[in-house]
Amino acid sequence: MELYIGYLAGVLGTICWVPQTWKAWSTQDTSGLSLAANLLFLATVTLWLVYGLLVGDLPLILANGCGLLIVLSIVVAKLKYK
Amino acid sequence: MELYIGYLAGVLGTICWVPQTWKAWSTQDTSGLSLAANLLFLATVTLWLVYGLLVGDLPLILANGCGLLIVLSIVVAKLKYK
Repeated sequence: MELYIGYLAGVLGTICWVPQTWKAWSTQDTSGLSLAANLLFLATVTLWLVYGLLVGDLPLILANGCGLLIVLSIVVAKLKYK
Repeated sequence: MELYIGYLAGVLGTICWVPQTWKAWSTQDTSGLSLAANLLFLATVTLWLVYGLLVGDLPLILANGCGLLIVLSIVVAKLKYK
């Protein structure tokens, strides 16, 4: 039971920013997005990816590898359409 | 070394949305924020909190308890200033 909740949280945490990425690129409206918050989140995901690589945890590597691309895409949209 | 990276990622992941909360409430500009993404993220943080409570993991409980308040505050701002 706990494991399923953990897996669900992991998957949801990876894909939850897809709608934000989509919105930023499709509307080009990024004025309300905090660059600081998204850069800090980018650093967070990068650290989790490094941690996953160091301890050899495949779920962490996959989740944060995908997450890195998604968040990077939000940051690029913010810098492009500011 | 890995542990320090993990702890740093955990702390950063908890506080990284504070600038977004601040920006949303101070500028009242939330048009660029994706409600779907923030609701999914709220669900994610809630699931991690439930998972932490079920397995009795204090760092998970503390991080996601704080995270829940921060993300909830962003969602409320989005609903209030849409």
